[in-house]
Amino acid sequence: MTDSPRRRRGRPRGGSSDARERILAAAAAEFGAQGYDATTMRTIAERARVDAALLHHYFGTKAALFTATVDVPADPTQLLPAVIEGDLAAAGERLVRMIVTTWDAPHFRTRGVALLRTAIGSRRAASMLVGFLSREVLGRIGERLGGDDADRRVALVGSQVIGLIVTRYVLELEPLASASVDEVVAAIGPTIQRYLTGDLQEAPPTRDA
Amino acid sequence: MTDSPRRRRGRPRGGSSDARERILAAAAAEFGAQGYDATTMRTIAERARVDAALLHHYFGTKAALFTATVDVPADPTQLLPAVIEGDLAAAGERLVRMIVTTWDAPHFRTRGVALLRTAIGSRRAASMLVGFLSREVLGRIGERLGGDDADRRVALVGSQVIGLIVTRYVLELEPLASASVDEVVAAIGPTIQRYLTGDLQEAPPTRDA
Repeated sequence: MTDSPRRRRGRPRGGSSDARERILAAAAAEFGAQGYDATTMRTIAERARVDAALLHHYFGTKAALFTATVDVPADPTQLLPAVIEGDLAAAGERLVRMIVTTWDAPHFRTRGVALLRTAIGSRRAASMLVGFLSREVLGRIGERLGGDDADRRVALVGSQVIGLIVTRYVLELEPLASASVDEVVAAIGPTIQRYLTGDLQEAPPTRDA
Repeated sequence: MTDSPRRRRGRPRGGSSDARERILAAAAAEFGAQGYDATTMRTIAERARVDAALLHHYFGTKAALFTATVDVPADPTQLLPAVIEGDLAAAGERLVRMIVTTWDAPHFRTRGVALLRTAIGSRRAASMLVGFLSREVLGRIGERLGGDDADRRVALVGSQVIGLIVTRYVLELEPLASASVDEVVAAIGPTIQRYLTGDLQEAPPTRDA
């Protein structure tokens, strides 16, 4: 598919910050209406009436544009390589440590909680966020894992990660809310590790065993 | 502390369903203003201007009145004994099975999701629900566990249970959203079991080990 001459000649009207705002508004509308997966840089550019190259210039990737649009305070696709590259046998700990240190920062936390409240409060926002997380976060972890049950494993990872975030940062359930990073990593890291690489049929050791 | 003669003589005005509604309204106001723990049957009766005995007559316990007030579709204090009585070494599986079979019922699910959305969307509602769950659900599991780290264990249980509920029923993340009860129990039961009775410092077995 080629660009139409009319659109290729498109120029943002007004200054560059005006174009940037128009892209963000168009992206919010497209992601909201079509969901994350079905929205493309092209459809956003068409709605914003700017050249698609300008989107790449300002935001780089669709994932980065999405995180800017929904005010995610950090782009998980930037943080993820440090977790999934390297030894898979320690990825559970790395993932929990990355999540807790990121969310513990007050600036991140305020915006993260607001985003989560929106996603859980609205079916449309939930579907948009799940589309993003499935594609850009869980999907990438799944690719790293490989195997027939990768989707199932990453959904389980999602369940514990979301539960940790909701419990520690939104509901503020003690003593989890004020536990140290190391305590959280020690307690929850092995759960994530089992979901990633463990035998999902075999019970872990108990203190009574 | 004794009842004042004025209050002891109090009678609901109008029919019994009017009194019941007045109790529910007073309970919602008290739980919302004071939180679950600080609210008593007495303070609710005073606000509703009925005899405290009438609260017990209609609702039995504070927990049951709370679940009626916030429209929880089942009283967890009624379901919990089946989980925490009996062999503790299998309580993780029992808890996951109870939660999934309860939430899978469409009637429960609709109201449960609405309640969870409210709790996560509002700090006051969150604090009320956490107060209830801490006292009546997690606290009772903690009493059954005993030990210095019971609070920490039950908070971890809460993190995975809430994550399971949010992921499967609110965000509807696949393939977890449509996994069978047995699949969910097999995958998540051991996590709960480790949090309840496992060595929280020791990693579970991995398929690479």
